[in-house]
Amino acid sequence: MKIALDAMGGDKAPAAVVQGGIDAARELGVSVVLVGREEDIKPCLDSSNDGKLPISVVSAPQVIAMDEQPTIALRTKPQSSIVKGLMLVKLGEADAFVSAGSTGAVGVGAYSILGCIQGVKRPAIALLYSTLTGRALFLDAGANADCRPQMLLQFAQMGSLYMQRLFGIANPRVGLLNIGEEETKGNRLIRETHRLLKDAGLNFIGNVEGKDVYRGVADVVVTDGFTGNVALKLSEGLSEAIFLSIRRALASSVATSAVSPSLLQGVLTSLIGSWDYSGLGGAYLLGIKGNVIIAHGRSDALAIKNAIGFAKQTVEQGALQALLSGAASKQ
Amino acid sequence: MKIALDAMGGDKAPAAVVQGGIDAARELGVSVVLVGREEDIKPCLDSSNDGKLPISVVSAPQVIAMDEQPTIALRTKPQSSIVKGLMLVKLGEADAFVSAGSTGAVGVGAYSILGCIQGVKRPAIALLYSTLTGRALFLDAGANADCRPQMLLQFAQMGSLYMQRLFGIANPRVGLLNIGEEETKGNRLIRETHRLLKDAGLNFIGNVEGKDVYRGVADVVVTDGFTGNVALKLSEGLSEAIFLSIRRALASSVATSAVSPSLLQGVLTSLIGSWDYSGLGGAYLLGIKGNVIIAHGRSDALAIKNAIGFAKQTVEQGALQALLSGAASKQ
Repeated sequence: MKIALDAMGGDKAPAAVVQGGIDAARELGVSVVLVGREEDIKPCLDSSNDGKLPISVVSAPQVIAMDEQPTIALRTKPQSSIVKGLMLVKLGEADAFVSAGSTGAVGVGAYSILGCIQGVKRPAIALLYSTLTGRALFLDAGANADCRPQMLLQFAQMGSLYMQRLFGIANPRVGLLNIGEEETKGNRLIRETHRLLKDAGLNFIGNVEGKDVYRGVADVVVTDGFTGNVALKLSEGLSEAIFLSIRRALASSVATSAVSPSLLQGVLTSLIGSWDYSGLGGAYLLGIKGNVIIAHGRSDALAIKNAIGFAKQTVEQGALQALLSGAASKQ
Repeated sequence: MKIALDAMGGDKAPAAVVQGGIDAARELGVSVVLVGREEDIKPCLDSSNDGKLPISVVSAPQVIAMDEQPTIALRTKPQSSIVKGLMLVKLGEADAFVSAGSTGAVGVGAYSILGCIQGVKRPAIALLYSTLTGRALFLDAGANADCRPQMLLQFAQMGSLYMQRLFGIANPRVGLLNIGEEETKGNRLIRETHRLLKDAGLNFIGNVEGKDVYRGVADVVVTDGFTGNVALKLSEGLSEAIFLSIRRALASSVATSAVSPSLLQGVLTSLIGSWDYSGLGGAYLLGIKGNVIIAHGRSDALAIKNAIGFAKQTVEQGALQALLSGAASKQ
């Protein structure tokens, strides 16, 4: 299996990204294709690759920055790592593309280069995240700021199929993110979506509220890309703020006690990891005709390795094939 | 100053609520009017009130439960603590009404009994919350699931005036909750609201993202009631989940170390308090012609006392008068 990796994407690229690729090639049994500027990749490779790992480099001299307008960047930079990585998937030269680069550019690029699965209106950013009881899929985490009920219905259908394939859950519980349990609650979009989901033949458990998202009551949580993106970034900001304030409070307590700072540090660090979605591998672009995984922009080597592992699992479980034939069966 | 308190509202009513009222009357220099079923209130009062505190009881034999449909409950229970408490404000017999009861019933009741300030389209639930650097106002936290841009503009104007009065902030920074910094980002509602806010004569700092909400970049964060309610409940659920997982992790570490469990417990408890909005007093129904404070449904005695303190501050600072004359000046 070949995974194309955007060596130029993310805050810690290329060094940490290349390192994550090396670790994946060493530990996960996949071939890694590093896509990016050779002069930047080579030094990172030479210092840590023993030369026997299944790693190759595909040259992509252009780089799309995080803050570039996606459509313009994609048009003016056909030799960028994002465009070339997606092309590898399109041409069948890679089974999946992993990028910690601009989410906008990867999303728009995937949509225009790979296209949507037949019948799918819009792809969604489907984020795998930790709950108190396991993991769940949250979508759309930000691909579509304005959604229609039919789009949310498709997100639910695709998300259900994806979790079925990825984790062997026979009948994934699908919840609709809303502001109350009753079906009369919510805004127009969500009330109409509720009606559609009731008759969709899914294991629809009804509305889930913000407080339920991390409790693990659903395997798939469906929302529009505006609410979803706010929720995602809010979660990130709040958990950071809480951990920061705990560190501060403990630091001042530790000074006057017998608590071992390293013990506490260890506990906190592992918890931060489990609450950070990079720990689970990232987000899948659900609905695209190809496997595209978006890793967190701040991914370190471990997060990149996890994202590649996530890509591997997606490919191995045949999630895309299931989605493609699911779409075909509805024609 | 007289504060009417819904003695029947909240999960811990009446005992903890009455206790919070007693504590407020003892410590905050306010008179507290307990509104509710006398036979329920009296035993709580007798056991802890020394009889010299400025506490009175107004009988309200009916109780509106948390899960009742607000409009029906308000119509069929005119002798409920919520209706009678709001009537005390309307008749000038109380300066504010504090309730930890059904947010829906209090909101709809306030709208129909007290009405909106002239020119205000809809009231918003304005939540005072902790940030890493202080506190900020978040609105609408759930009163209006479907908003129009003009409503969000008014929320921003009212929120700005409120923070100005409450904390003496000369020019409160107003941020619009969005999924990116650029003004082209967001859904239709938020893009149009952005245009209105730019020309509103406020200290509009532009879009703020989910990750900024807890960083304290804005004094007033404006959003629609759907996104706002999801964000509020998500924050609550996530912080609970994080604290729970920390307790678990530390409990297992503590067993094998020299860490003092009570020390850690103390640190965590105080942090949970500071991240729980009950610590700051609750939410103000902004836009209503009267002072109405919604406390958390799970409020304990301390949270109720804080909510009464918040009501007192609002009354003392003349926030409502400022809002009323702000409205008048625009006629």
